[in-house]
Amino acid sequence: MTGAERTARVMARADELGRISEEEGRLTRRFATPALVEAGRVIAGWMEEAGLEVAIDAVGNVRGRNGVAGAPLVIGSHYDTVRDAGRYDGPLGVLCAIEVAAALGETAGPLEVVAFSDEEGTRYAVAYLGSSAYRGRFEPAWLALEDADGVTMAAALEAVGGDGEAATRQVGEPIAGYLEVHIEQGPVLEDEELPVGVVGAIVGQTRIRVELTGRAGHAGTVPAALRADALAGAAELVLAVEEAMKATSGLVATVGELVVEPGAANVIPGKAVLSLDVRHAEDPIRDGAVRELHEAATQLAAWRGLALDWQVLQSTASMRMSATLVESLSSAIVPEGFAVRSLVSGAGHDAVIVGRDAPAAMLFVRCLGGVSHSPLESVEEADVAVALSVLERALRARAQASA
Amino acid sequence: MTGAERTARVMARADELGRISEEEGRLTRRFATPALVEAGRVIAGWMEEAGLEVAIDAVGNVRGRNGVAGAPLVIGSHYDTVRDAGRYDGPLGVLCAIEVAAALGETAGPLEVVAFSDEEGTRYAVAYLGSSAYRGRFEPAWLALEDADGVTMAAALEAVGGDGEAATRQVGEPIAGYLEVHIEQGPVLEDEELPVGVVGAIVGQTRIRVELTGRAGHAGTVPAALRADALAGAAELVLAVEEAMKATSGLVATVGELVVEPGAANVIPGKAVLSLDVRHAEDPIRDGAVRELHEAATQLAAWRGLALDWQVLQSTASMRMSATLVESLSSAIVPEGFAVRSLVSGAGHDAVIVGRDAPAAMLFVRCLGGVSHSPLESVEEADVAVALSVLERALRARAQASA
Repeated sequence: MTGAERTARVMARADELGRISEEEGRLTRRFATPALVEAGRVIAGWMEEAGLEVAIDAVGNVRGRNGVAGAPLVIGSHYDTVRDAGRYDGPLGVLCAIEVAAALGETAGPLEVVAFSDEEGTRYAVAYLGSSAYRGRFEPAWLALEDADGVTMAAALEAVGGDGEAATRQVGEPIAGYLEVHIEQGPVLEDEELPVGVVGAIVGQTRIRVELTGRAGHAGTVPAALRADALAGAAELVLAVEEAMKATSGLVATVGELVVEPGAANVIPGKAVLSLDVRHAEDPIRDGAVRELHEAATQLAAWRGLALDWQVLQSTASMRMSATLVESLSSAIVPEGFAVRSLVSGAGHDAVIVGRDAPAAMLFVRCLGGVSHSPLESVEEADVAVALSVLERALRARAQASA
Repeated sequence: MTGAERTARVMARADELGRISEEEGRLTRRFATPALVEAGRVIAGWMEEAGLEVAIDAVGNVRGRNGVAGAPLVIGSHYDTVRDAGRYDGPLGVLCAIEVAAALGETAGPLEVVAFSDEEGTRYAVAYLGSSAYRGRFEPAWLALEDADGVTMAAALEAVGGDGEAATRQVGEPIAGYLEVHIEQGPVLEDEELPVGVVGAIVGQTRIRVELTGRAGHAGTVPAALRADALAGAAELVLAVEEAMKATSGLVATVGELVVEPGAANVIPGKAVLSLDVRHAEDPIRDGAVRELHEAATQLAAWRGLALDWQVLQSTASMRMSATLVESLSSAIVPEGFAVRSLVSGAGHDAVIVGRDAPAAMLFVRCLGGVSHSPLESVEEADVAVALSVLERALRARAQASA
C-alpha cells in the first residue's frame, strides 16, 4: 500500500467515524455511550486488519499490540468528541497510528496503538478518563459523578458493557514512550504555511471567576461622578488582560464569558461576572501574570468603588515534552523539506496524563483556520500525508537505533 | 387640616396604593389591568373627597376639576408602575396634586388634577399612553399592539371597561400649563442635601444597538497577534463611552446590556452585542457625542479587524421646561430656606407629552439613594412636606397674579 493510499484511507475512515454519533445530523460521541462503543468496535476492526492484537479495556480504551515483546512505544489519541464536533480532533491521531503500525508491523519494535475513550470530558466534566484508566490513575470517586441526565458514570459504563470497578483496579503497564498526532487547534502552522509542527510543551492553565459589584442605577438620572458601573470596571479588566497577553511572550489570556446584571439598556450595570483563562508553558510566568492581573483588578475596583470577588477555580501545571522524542519527531520532519516548528500546545491532551511517568511528545497537523470543536474542523490530505510520513520515519529511526 | 396632616395622608395613601397590585407580594400595576382600574377608583374617591368633579376617560385617566371655569392649570402625574415597582414613582405626584387642590379649593383659579393611566409603557412598550390620550394624540395603530400574552390593547381596554376607539377621538382641551411633582430617580438632591429641585429640561435620548463581530477561537491555542476578540473591542467602546460622559458636562452615556457569544470560558469571544444609551438636555451636544462614539467604534473595529454594526434604534429630542413655570416653582422654594437647584431630568415624564403644546415644569423630590423602579424606592416625609408647601405656594402666587 502506498503512502497516498494510506493517507486516503485515513481521510475516508475519519469520515466514517464522523458518522457514528449520538445525535442525528451532528457529531457528538461522549464517554460510555452506545455511539462510542460502536466507534470503538469499528476502530478495533481496523486495528485487527492492521495486524494488531486488540483488547478493549473496562472504560472502552481500544488497545492494539504488534506482538513484539517488551515495554512498547505507545502511539494514539482519543476517539470521544465534544458536542457538535469535527471529525479530526482525536480520531486523526488514532487513524494515523493504525496506518503507521500497519506499515511497520514488527519492524517497529514493541508497539502499542491506543484509542482513548475519553479526553474531552464532555459528559462528566472530568477530562482524560481514558488515559487516566490506561495509566492506572482512574479515581474511584469519579464513578459517582452524574451526567446532565443524572446518570452516574458507574451506571453509564455498566449499561454499555464497561466496568467502573475494574477501571479503578487497572494499572499502568511499563511503556517506552508516547507519541500522538493531533490537529493543532490553532492558527500558527497555517499562518506560517507549515503542514506539521512539534509540540515542545503543553501549557499550564489557571481558570478564575471574577465578580465586580457596583451600584445599579437609572441610565438617565445618575451622573458620571456618582456611578459605580460594574461593566466599566469589567471593561478595564478585559483590556488589562489583553495588555498582559501582548506584553508577555507565549502568554494567552482570555475573558470568554461576561454577564452583566441587571442587563437592561436603561440601567447602569450593578454587577459583572467574567471568566478569566490564563495559560503559559512556564508556570512561574503564568503565576506572575495571574498575580499582576489580580493586582490590576484590585486597584481598578478600589478607585471605581466596586467590590471585587476573585475566585481561582482551577490551576494546572504545564508539562514539558520529552526532549528525546521531540528530537525524534524533529529529525523526521527535516527530510520532508519543511522548517521544524516547535509549538506550545495551548490545549490539554492525553499526553498530559501519559507523559507523567513516561517520555511523551506530539506532532501537530495544520488545520483550516485553526478551527476545532466545530463541524468546520478541516485538515488537508497532503498535510496528513506528511504527518504519516514523519511518524513512520521517527518510529523506524527509533527501532533501528535500538536494534 | 395642617400641612403635617396632609403630608402624613400622602404617605399613607402611597402605602395604600402600593398594595393594589396585579401580583401577590410585589407591586406591578400595568395599563388596562383590573389592578389599575381599582387604583383609579380609589384615586377618584380621594379626588371627590378633595372637592373635585371627577371623570375617568376612555383609557383610565382620572381627571378632577375644581369647578372654576377657564383653561385650567393641570397638576398631576401617573399611577401605573413598572414590574416590581416602588410606591412613589408616579403616585407621589398624583397624591400631592390632590392635597394641594384640597387645600386651595377654588382659590387656585381654574385647576385640574390628572392621574395618568400609563407613563411607564410596561405592558405595550409604548410609553405615555395616558398623557397622549389626554392631549388628543392617542394613535389608532397602538390599539393593535399585543402584550406579552398576545392580548391587544383594544381587547385589554374593553375588558376593563375602557374604549380604545373613543381614546383615538379624544381631543386635547386648552390648558394653561402643567406642573408635576415626581421623585428625582437620581442621586443629585441627596448628594447636595436638598429636599426638592426644579427641572429645567428633560433630556433627549438616543438608543443604539452595537454589534461587534470578530473570530471565535480556542482560548489556549490562538496567540494574541492572531486574535480578533469581539469582547476586547466592546471593552474599549465601554471605556470610550465612559470617557465621553466624563468629558462632556451633563452628558450621560451608558452601556447597560452586553452579551458575548459564544460565551464560554475557553473560547475567544466571536461576537459582542451591546446597548448604548446617550442623553443630554441639548440635542446638538447629544448628537455630537453619538457621532464621536460612532467614529471611535469605527476606528477601534478597524484596527482590531472587527466588523461593526451600528444601529440607531430611537432618537428623541429634549424638552425645555417653561421658563415662567420654572420661575414660579423656584420662587416658591426660596421661603423654604433651601437653595434652588435646577435639575435636568434624565428620565422621560408625562411633562414631555403635555409640554408639547402647553407650558410645563416639574418639581423633583429627593429619593433615597437615587433608587427608583424598585421596591426599595423611598422618600422622606419631611421632603414631601416641602414639596406640598412649594406646590401650594406656587399655585397661590399664580392665582393671585392673575386675579
